Amino acid sequence: MSARRLIARAVACLLLGGSAVVITAQAAEPPAAIQPSKAALKAAEQLRDRALASNDAYDWLTAISTEVGPRQAGSPGDAAGVAWLRDKLTAQGFKNVRTPEVIVPHWVRGEASFEVLAPYPQKMVTLAIGGSIGTPEEGLSAPIVMVQDVPALQALKREQVEGKIVYFAGRTERTRDGSGYGKAVRSRQEGPSAAAALGAVGIVIRSIGTSINRIAHTGTLTYNIGAPRIPAVAISNPDANLLERVIASGKPVSVRLRVTARDLPQVRSANVIGDLPGTDLANEIVLVGGHLDSWDPGFGVQDDGAGVIIALAAAKLAASMEPKPRRTIRVIGFANEEFGLSGAFKYPADEGKASVDRHAFAMEADLGAGPVWKLSARVPDAHWPLVQGIHRVVKNLGVELGDNKTGGGSDLGPLRRQGVPTLAPALDATNYFDIHHTPNDTLEQVDPAKLRQSVAVFAVSVYLAAMADGPVERIETEGSPR
Amino acid sequence: MSARRLIARAVACLLLGGSAVVITAQAAEPPAAIQPSKAALKAAEQLRDRALASNDAYDWLTAISTEVGPRQAGSPGDAAGVAWLRDKLTAQGFKNVRTPEVIVPHWVRGEASFEVLAPYPQKMVTLAIGGSIGTPEEGLSAPIVMVQDVPALQALKREQVEGKIVYFAGRTERTRDGSGYGKAVRSRQEGPSAAAALGAVGIVIRSIGTSINRIAHTGTLTYNIGAPRIPAVAISNPDANLLERVIASGKPVSVRLRVTARDLPQVRSANVIGDLPGTDLANEIVLVGGHLDSWDPGFGVQDDGAGVIIALAAAKLAASMEPKPRRTIRVIGFANEEFGLSGAFKYPADEGKASVDRHAFAMEADLGAGPVWKLSARVPDAHWPLVQGIHRVVKNLGVELGDNKTGGGSDLGPLRRQGVPTLAPALDATNYFDIHHTPNDTLEQVDPAKLRQSVAVFAVSVYLAAMADGPVERIETEGSPR
Repeated sequence: MSARRLIARAVACLLLGGSAVVITAQAAEPPAAIQPSKAALKAAEQLRDRALASNDAYDWLTAISTEVGPRQAGSPGDAAGVAWLRDKLTAQGFKNVRTPEVIVPHWVRGEASFEVLAPYPQKMVTLAIGGSIGTPEEGLSAPIVMVQDVPALQALKREQVEGKIVYFAGRTERTRDGSGYGKAVRSRQEGPSAAAALGAVGIVIRSIGTSINRIAHTGTLTYNIGAPRIPAVAISNPDANLLERVIASGKPVSVRLRVTARDLPQVRSANVIGDLPGTDLANEIVLVGGHLDSWDPGFGVQDDGAGVIIALAAAKLAASMEPKPRRTIRVIGFANEEFGLSGAFKYPADEGKASVDRHAFAMEADLGAGPVWKLSARVPDAHWPLVQGIHRVVKNLGVELGDNKTGGGSDLGPLRRQGVPTLAPALDATNYFDIHHTPNDTLEQVDPAKLRQSVAVFAVSVYLAAMADGPVERIETEGSPR
Repeated sequence: MSARRLIARAVACLLLGGSAVVITAQAAEPPAAIQPSKAALKAAEQLRDRALASNDAYDWLTAISTEVGPRQAGSPGDAAGVAWLRDKLTAQGFKNVRTPEVIVPHWVRGEASFEVLAPYPQKMVTLAIGGSIGTPEEGLSAPIVMVQDVPALQALKREQVEGKIVYFAGRTERTRDGSGYGKAVRSRQEGPSAAAALGAVGIVIRSIGTSINRIAHTGTLTYNIGAPRIPAVAISNPDANLLERVIASGKPVSVRLRVTARDLPQVRSANVIGDLPGTDLANEIVLVGGHLDSWDPGFGVQDDGAGVIIALAAAKLAASMEPKPRRTIRVIGFANEEFGLSGAFKYPADEGKASVDRHAFAMEADLGAGPVWKLSARVPDAHWPLVQGIHRVVKNLGVELGDNKTGGGSDLGPLRRQGVPTLAPALDATNYFDIHHTPNDTLEQVDPAKLRQSVAVFAVSVYLAAMADGPVERIETEGSPR
């Protein structure tokens, strides 16, 4: 045990006031090397095979896509999604199903258009970036200035940008771990305020995605507080290529941008939570979830209907095994991940510190519909044998063993920051950013076999986490893992 | 020679009044078995390899896509396309470049939306079908009735359809020769009037295309004259799947359809024509073309920018060879294929019968950007050795030898009906109906190597057709090949 961990545990004990079930009893001892028992491992193998043979997840994903569809925070679809998941958890035998209120923003997309006026009139496939303000009714017409990214923009002088519409040309690299998206997305998130700071009147970005289809990508921006706000849209990759060819002509390029988006008052949404009670360690929780909200242009199938359904199916399958899971398995559909993690922040706040400390492990699926290609985690070092035990059961599904520094799941951030260990089966993102945040997030892009494999890996992870001997330590919270 | 052909030739002679250069001299003799000379075949091999090494076609296709983009009949882009091709032909050394007027319809798409109101509200990706009337401003709300195709609709009773919106569910089969499209398209073309005849208030069809992307497909409908007209839209294949799942719920399904399309007065467009004069047979013409107009949601890259550019590049390359082509090579960009073949009908009318009979062979490229997978034709049997000669030069490019009953190219119909023989290199349509008539008809979907192969096959065909000994016979015109 490192000195840092000892300090962290001491701080945790002070904060907890002795109410934590898991930690206090052993605070002065090295943590036990928790490992799955042989019986649990054998059951996990059966569970894996049962999951691979079950089409429940695909059927449920089909159902939510059909009966609810898009679930943008604050929209009627959001409310329908909450009701759908509440009813599904109840019907599947979850206990204490509840929908604690979460207040969410309500941005309305309206319409967006972007066109080149000169030298070659061309209309482009466009989506407003989430949170964008609208333009005047007639739109904004201005010359364009192209940059690759925010640092390149910031290297320009004000007179090169002022009064213009800034085009961010940076491309999204296709990667298995989704890191290409993380690098590219800064233009969308920070671009509007960075451009406004130099006097730009609007921005247009190349879609933060890898598809060559003529489908634009949305997602949020972040306006700097107190700074001027300018409208922001994304154009599809083929349109971005076209725009760059037009700019490469060397002729002056003028464009028109029009957005009718607007913010409406905040509304009530909810986290959706249900439990499958454990046995002798029922007071401890293995949490598995996804986020229930989605972007509006697609159906929210892979982002993140798949995550919610993987959690639901994995939990249900795990709870069906003998020996029965010792810890309570909790499924959660987080509210409003996309527009600011409202549900993720509200959940630990609702629970309170003592309840959060009952969370032995947390997991989230939020990177598409699989397959899982790697099993990482962020657990106390002494608990790594649990991860190794899970991996032994799923490695024949093509799953690599990853590292012990991966928090996995943006909705888990607030829990991680309170020391909850996380297991992180990594969903393969190679093709995910072809469809993520686009109208193309449809059932047709889901491979049922890959979804079944994902459910199997999550189910085994949930089950063995619920079966392991305790006590489960807290993770260090310094450095605020992502 | 068949009795039918003899009769056809006799009729042709009467009609021609002795003015046809090609036919009259030998009307009483069996047609010569025209074959390419060895020198021509050798030059054709060089031509093939030169074409495979040239990126001109891709560069030109890039240019028209960038500088003009969509070219819907009657739109500003249509006029820009005419000017672009006129200037390109002139710049490339074509003679007698001309733009004879063609009057075209001017339908304006406006907006279209289609949504399920109940039992599960869902908004769908929608395009109006070309020629559709608009709906009232607030749209049309009605129950839906699903059928597979027009015959299935016509088997219903009026009370099953009256007051409803008819959904045509038929799917488009993926085929190399494009025949799947031909079978499926009847719902789009005849569906509106067939549904209106039973009292329907509107129709929605599954897109006539093979893509699983969330992109809808347009194309024309044909309203029966004097019959009631109802609005018509297409939804993307994923949306169609969703609609069918909603219908499969067994609950009553109501939908809303809204279209703001309208017809404007006809406007002037033009065929664009340029010649590369031949030598000793310069009075005879080898015509190669595509159609210059396109649908508006995409950029008209494969439909049919590619065809026009293949024709242009093939002609230019063929004319660069020694021995120089004996016949005149004519390139044409037909006006308004999509909305009724206006340019195709106008061209022979402009030329007059005597000039039409100077056309030794005609070719059109209008099935995407390649590759060519088969070489068919519709020539007098005695001229089949020419087709075999072309095939010998291109078979190492993966080209099969097809049949002698393929007219190839809808714009060639009026010429075929006047007896003009056609060569028909068949473009591979396997993936074409993923993008045809959709916003996804972009440069990104074109493989430059396949485009070069297509240019090579067309160039060899043009060249050897221009080099062959004459006289070239007429084809039989009974039966009006497609």
